[in-house]
Amino acid sequence: MNKKGLLFVISGPAGTGKGTVVKHLLETGEFFFSVSATTRAPRDGEVHAINYYFITKEEFEKRIAAGEMLEYAQYVGNYYGTPKSAVEEALDAGKNVILEIETQGALQIRKIMPEAILILILAPDIETLEARLVGRGTESADIVAKRMAEARREVTLIDKYDYVVINEDGKSEEAAKDILGIAKAEKMRASRNTELKEKFI
Amino acid sequence: MNKKGLLFVISGPAGTGKGTVVKHLLETGEFFFSVSATTRAPRDGEVHAINYYFITKEEFEKRIAAGEMLEYAQYVGNYYGTPKSAVEEALDAGKNVILEIETQGALQIRKIMPEAILILILAPDIETLEARLVGRGTESADIVAKRMAEARREVTLIDKYDYVVINEDGKSEEAAKDILGIAKAEKMRASRNTELKEKFI
Repeated sequence: MNKKGLLFVISGPAGTGKGTVVKHLLETGEFFFSVSATTRAPRDGEVHAINYYFITKEEFEKRIAAGEMLEYAQYVGNYYGTPKSAVEEALDAGKNVILEIETQGALQIRKIMPEAILILILAPDIETLEARLVGRGTESADIVAKRMAEARREVTLIDKYDYVVINEDGKSEEAAKDILGIAKAEKMRASRNTELKEKFI
Repeated sequence: MNKKGLLFVISGPAGTGKGTVVKHLLETGEFFFSVSATTRAPRDGEVHAINYYFITKEEFEKRIAAGEMLEYAQYVGNYYGTPKSAVEEALDAGKNVILEIETQGALQIRKIMPEAILILILAPDIETLEARLVGRGTESADIVAKRMAEARREVTLIDKYDYVVINEDGKSEEAAKDILGIAKAEKMRASRNTELKEKFI
């Protein structure tokens, strides 16, 4: 009898380095990564079906209509979403799943799957976040300003999350270890171990 | 400004080895240990004001009446309880506090301090637990039988706890590490880090 896997939903403003943290987590082999679908253009080096399923707006809307998206959101003018079937299959097979999604999508998941573990990754402070976005050099000043406004809004959602992990400069491996520790603790949650009662009767 | 310390309440049936696990935790220097008061007789090697405050039934009842007990319970004919002031002072000073108390007392703490973290330590199964109690050789067969009945009742309270930690034979240091991991994860709880909102506005 497989115990169902745990669902970890990881969000964080752009520039918090959540992509790098998630990369470290996947290297441990302990998580199934759900590849999101998006209508935004790939950045340099991003690969279809690895980083995202890069699909058209028409295709995305067709999948929404067919009920094939676990959650979806529009963010800076593009759709982002999570294909449903792969996540459900992995959880049923006892695998722990990581979803890296925006806050809107995370809150949709919370409603559908209250047992999901929501983790917000943050930079230590707003100045560090801005320095990272500007330093990345891949977005225009206009987009940076939009992302900063979005970050401020996202941080107000902190109460909707279960955990906050701070990703300090150059310490993404520490942040990944923090999340591994959270995963280990969550497995010891009494509510996930009620079958022990039978072992003591 | 000190952040308030976290209160860890550790319970477990007799024979789960919770005393040894707590000893390992205290050796880390990361916790303030609240010494309980009891009316039971000291076992070999137990020291007053270190293991317990060993006091008379009359003295214990006087302290209850004076409101000086955070919680108290009767267990196999004796009183056990937690003197209030030391715990509150340590928490206010930002120290993390460990209380090692019976389930009745733990549930009293949950009501008064809902933010307390309740951890139930268990043996892997009922056979292991009985073997440990019999092997200890400090209690009569009659007391062992009473403790086994008590253990069965306590395990039904699993849903009232936050976490369950299994203490395997000879692995009490692992169990202590599990609790340290829980402590670290709990510090990352979003609800304990809402002051971050101000850093992003």
